[in-house]
Amino acid sequence: MKAGIIGGTGYTGGELARILCTHPDVEIAAMTSRQSAGRKVKEVHPYLGGYLDLEFSERITGKEDLDLVFVATPHGVAMKEVPGLLENGVKAIDLSGDYRLKDTAVYEKWYGHVHTDTDNLEKAVYGLPEFFRSEIKGADLVANPGCYATSAILACGPLLKSGLAGGDIIIDAKSGTSGAGMVPSDRTHHPFCGESVIPYSVGKHRHTPEIEMAVSRFAGKKAEVTFVPNLVPIVRGIISSCYFSLGKDADQEKIDSVYMKQYGNEPFVHYTDNPSLRATIASNHAQVSVKTVGDKAVAFGVLDNLVKGASGQAVQCMNLMLGLKETAGLDYPGLGV
Amino acid sequence: MKAGIIGGTGYTGGELARILCTHPDVEIAAMTSRQSAGRKVKEVHPYLGGYLDLEFSERITGKEDLDLVFVATPHGVAMKEVPGLLENGVKAIDLSGDYRLKDTAVYEKWYGHVHTDTDNLEKAVYGLPEFFRSEIKGADLVANPGCYATSAILACGPLLKSGLAGGDIIIDAKSGTSGAGMVPSDRTHHPFCGESVIPYSVGKHRHTPEIEMAVSRFAGKKAEVTFVPNLVPIVRGIISSCYFSLGKDADQEKIDSVYMKQYGNEPFVHYTDNPSLRATIASNHAQVSVKTVGDKAVAFGVLDNLVKGASGQAVQCMNLMLGLKETAGLDYPGLGV
Amino acid sequence: MKAGIIGGTGYTGGELARILCTHPDVEIAAMTSRQSAGRKVKEVHPYLGGYLDLEFSERITGKEDLDLVFVATPHGVAMKEVPGLLENGVKAIDLSGDYRLKDTAVYEKWYGHVHTDTDNLEKAVYGLPEFFRSEIKGADLVANPGCYATSAILACGPLLKSGLAGGDIIIDAKSGTSGAGMVPSDRTHHPFCGESVIPYSVGKHRHTPEIEMAVSRFAGKKAEVTFVPNLVPIVRGIISSCYFSLGKDADQEKIDSVYMKQYGNEPFVHYTDNPSLRATIASNHAQVSVKTVGDKAVAFGVLDNLVKGASGQAVQCMNLMLGLKETAGLDYPGLGV
Amino acid sequence: MKAGIIGGTGYTGGELARILCTHPDVEIAAMTSRQSAGRKVKEVHPYLGGYLDLEFSERITGKEDLDLVFVATPHGVAMKEVPGLLENGVKAIDLSGDYRLKDTAVYEKWYGHVHTDTDNLEKAVYGLPEFFRSEIKGADLVANPGCYATSAILACGPLLKSGLAGGDIIIDAKSGTSGAGMVPSDRTHHPFCGESVIPYSVGKHRHTPEIEMAVSRFAGKKAEVTFVPNLVPIVRGIISSCYFSLGKDADQEKIDSVYMKQYGNEPFVHYTDNPSLRATIASNHAQVSVKTVGDKAVAFGVLDNLVKGASGQAVQCMNLMLGLKETAGLDYPGLGV
Repeated sequence: MKAGIIGGTGYTGGELARILCTHPDVEIAAMTSRQSAGRKVKEVHPYLGGYLDLEFSERITGKEDLDLVFVATPHGVAMKEVPGLLENGVKAIDLSGDYRLKDTAVYEKWYGHVHTDTDNLEKAVYGLPEFFRSEIKGADLVANPGCYATSAILACGPLLKSGLAGGDIIIDAKSGTSGAGMVPSDRTHHPFCGESVIPYSVGKHRHTPEIEMAVSRFAGKKAEVTFVPNLVPIVRGIISSCYFSLGKDADQEKIDSVYMKQYGNEPFVHYTDNPSLRATIASNHAQVSVKTVGDKAVAFGVLDNLVKGASGQAVQCMNLMLGLKETAGLDYPGLGV
Repeated sequence: MKAGIIGGTGYTGGELARILCTHPDVEIAAMTSRQSAGRKVKEVHPYLGGYLDLEFSERITGKEDLDLVFVATPHGVAMKEVPGLLENGVKAIDLSGDYRLKDTAVYEKWYGHVHTDTDNLEKAVYGLPEFFRSEIKGADLVANPGCYATSAILACGPLLKSGLAGGDIIIDAKSGTSGAGMVPSDRTHHPFCGESVIPYSVGKHRHTPEIEMAVSRFAGKKAEVTFVPNLVPIVRGIISSCYFSLGKDADQEKIDSVYMKQYGNEPFVHYTDNPSLRATIASNHAQVSVKTVGDKAVAFGVLDNLVKGASGQAVQCMNLMLGLKETAGLDYPGLGV
Repeated sequence: MKAGIIGGTGYTGGELARILCTHPDVEIAAMTSRQSAGRKVKEVHPYLGGYLDLEFSERITGKEDLDLVFVATPHGVAMKEVPGLLENGVKAIDLSGDYRLKDTAVYEKWYGHVHTDTDNLEKAVYGLPEFFRSEIKGADLVANPGCYATSAILACGPLLKSGLAGGDIIIDAKSGTSGAGMVPSDRTHHPFCGESVIPYSVGKHRHTPEIEMAVSRFAGKKAEVTFVPNLVPIVRGIISSCYFSLGKDADQEKIDSVYMKQYGNEPFVHYTDNPSLRATIASNHAQVSVKTVGDKAVAFGVLDNLVKGASGQAVQCMNLMLGLKETAGLDYPGLGV
Repeated sequence: MKAGIIGGTGYTGGELARILCTHPDVEIAAMTSRQSAGRKVKEVHPYLGGYLDLEFSERITGKEDLDLVFVATPHGVAMKEVPGLLENGVKAIDLSGDYRLKDTAVYEKWYGHVHTDTDNLEKAVYGLPEFFRSEIKGADLVANPGCYATSAILACGPLLKSGLAGGDIIIDAKSGTSGAGMVPSDRTHHPFCGESVIPYSVGKHRHTPEIEMAVSRFAGKKAEVTFVPNLVPIVRGIISSCYFSLGKDADQEKIDSVYMKQYGNEPFVHYTDNPSLRATIASNHAQVSVKTVGDKAVAFGVLDNLVKGASGQAVQCMNLMLGLKETAGLDYPGLGV
């Protein structure tokens, strides 16, 4: 089968290519880049040398005979690209925020512009396989979750579904710097962030409504999420620490049982007593851990922000959408060290 | 005046010497170390070469004519050293946990052994000048706060005193690795922690009851503290992110006003809109910032764990106890970069 | 086919298991560990959960029907294990230094004890496929090169073979901390090394004679190597910067041509104008680059110390020894980011 | 006395202000910044809050009654500022490269534009107090050395002066990222450099001719310098590893004696067996160490690039030029940890 990537110069585009170039069933047939059109992909992403001999093209023409396209552009661009793909019968996975929020008013509030593709927004499926596997299998358009959102929702989901905790959640998340993308900025300038921990966008990060939407769905009522992201001086990795008030019935044993039931058979999400970020790095694996402290609980969600938090999860969704084995091209362990 | 340091080989002992060796009014007259007795201090702490020509001694003999002694030993040792010092009329500042918790039952629960110096425990003053300045001035024995505790209490204190927030606090703290001390361990092994974020001692860290004691005093009722420390791959620095539920009357403006009133004239604690860990490093300055998010607030406490979080604060207390200018030997800015 | 690992708890043992658990043709049938015998491998290396359900055993018994055993023990131990393996017709790859130095007097000088298996030492082949591929194919015993040695020899080899540079080489190498192994020490304690660059074992590192042996062979005369390793605060990765005096005939173009000829068809070693450590991380790929500066040249050798610098290269050798495709189980790109 | 700073927004400008704001004899009377004119300095450099209440001005007007001005601008700008200062009888220290190279042809080759102030260039003194103290004392214009150059020249100087080694030097230098200045770039983007070591400007770095000029002066003949800088993921600090071929008479003892004679009485440069970068950080102290390896020697020069490598050394020069105590405002140890 053939996949395309729109927006191939950034980190998520490069990571998609890194994963797909050893995929047993899918071949990258096209990668676009406005600024790099005409250049070999391996010039821009030298680690792909020997694995991908493609040139960046200006745009998807429709003649590539693609089965699926990943849209790895900034938000606002994706909703201009997706309609044409779907009309031509090409499935699409959007890695930006354009199709994640069902409520266009919420989208417009957080993203600052109107949504111009409300038709497809309705049909878009939120690409978190551990919770929406069957919808993803049947979808033509998947909104791939944000990196923070994936780590937080995996950590919080089972507890909220179980009713053992209420829907008032505080999330203190720590992200590696690759989450900021490839464009240098003051915040990712090494002398500024290399020996520091930097909270940012306190209460204003765009993953907030995305997390609220998902956890509200699980809780069966509007969940209140206080989300504080922090930049930490690592390149890859996110750990989201999610704090809950427990109901009277909740205890460690019941919580463990809920999570084991949810994740016991998942190929990529693992419930563990002792979460390790390094165990997930360079892999599609995520770890979840919950510890009770008095009448509170803290749920940790741990993953590689570029893999399970972005491009790996997108490939997992692709596998489901194309009827392939869910783990195809992703079935290897994290680094550990 | 003359000061001594019991336990001079560790990081806090070395940092005390680093600060005191340029203090205008106080000279280091003795430093003890069991394992390094007889060696020059500058052999163990080479950065002190040119500033301190002392040898480590086995013990304080009483003939050194000391005005004050810093006890920088592991907990359990300090309570054996302090009684003799006080009997001889030497003031003492304990940097361990031995004199921080007023309730011996709580001490024994968290530290795992009985307290053998309950008489002096009663008299010990908690060494946080921004809240207990006048008591410190009159004290013979000061219990220097823990690094996490200092950052958290500075962040939470004004809000709790004001009644604008309740006493149910979640603290997600991130510490540099120097907080773990000079003895190598699995957790501080660079391949393990150098590209990771590691939550540890969840709900079980010994600074928890210390924070609870202080904030309960401010709140006027038992405060519930959920404290989760994390190791981050920086050498110096702590940032404690403290989450509160706000009362109905609270808003950003009132909160700002409360903190400005509390810290507006403090030499070392600064209320700021934009906290910067690097601005505090290598200095006794701390920064506090509070941001409201819906009906919650997050208060950040930021400092250098070895200075305001340990040895610098101890010197600040010493200045108060000896009637010196509070900022003597500490009056310089942080690194910034 | 079936492989065993003697000494499976350390970083190279874990990395062997990480690579082999997705190898298409070889299965791990036994892993030994003195301290962890009886425990599941995935308890010690949690990232292997889902990929390896083996228990550590006390020793290789001979009943495992193994085709090849990796010896990932400290030096001095390997030469006790190897003779029995070979007698039983099991091929062996030693990842320690025991079989790297052909001259036992040199071994004894640098390792501090006598060599007790001189018979097999004679037969051992140095496991650098890019230079000794055909010997490795026919070998029963391979001495897997050291991490520093691999990076330096790949960088220097072609230039010395070409005669364009003399044999007086200065090597300034920078290594990530995982090269120090899993046992915590003062040097790898994060507060000590996390914001520093630390030269160590200046002129005394055990990879020195190994590099000298190899490059002398290429130069056709005794090469003088000045080798200075440095610890840098990254987890994975080595870059060796090798300085040469050029002969009169040498220029950038001739050098480029020599290296392209040497490495142009290699699957894992790439000659490049712009070396990138991150492009090699988590992969068996290495990069080599040479730049002339006046009458000198500097050759850079860049790789992941745990993969091409240790366990990945061992698997590459295994593939050759067992008649498998050389790239089997190793054919994926580095991380890039 | 009164000092001014032209170009106060960058890292070296901020570091000058950080050091001078606690200087006992000199006050900062003016700081200029084109982009920040009118703003308080402490808004741009928040760590200076409480220490400096100045506003950035557009330019030095001449009415400030300054004794000395630091020029902390990019090269090319300084040579436009300096003539006016000197004409008005204000001494100047240029932290850029404009007055370092005596030969204008060399300047133009390496900096890419003509030198427009050759008159003052002739009079400028190279501001390395350990070698040119008496000239600095009498100078009106000092060219403050580059960070790499300072570390390399301190390491190489005594050996070259002694004649124990020839003038063919290879310098492999490792720098923290703050050396790149405050403007974000691809190279200092944390995801790119945070877990990597990056050689750059191989043979083309502008500190090369500066080092060559100084060491040639010591050697009494043209020295050949091969200079390779590397970016390492630390914020502050440089270590330059300088490789020499030794003459027949040279041995460790003689070399030690030469360095002890050179540096034994220096307040800021220390000859040591065991160099430690962390011992120099946040201080004006530098360490030098030399180790012989066969017929080679490696000399290490270690310092904080922003202090002894830039602003601290400039203040040391200022002290000499103004007849103050050389160590004034700089007399405190490095961090150690």
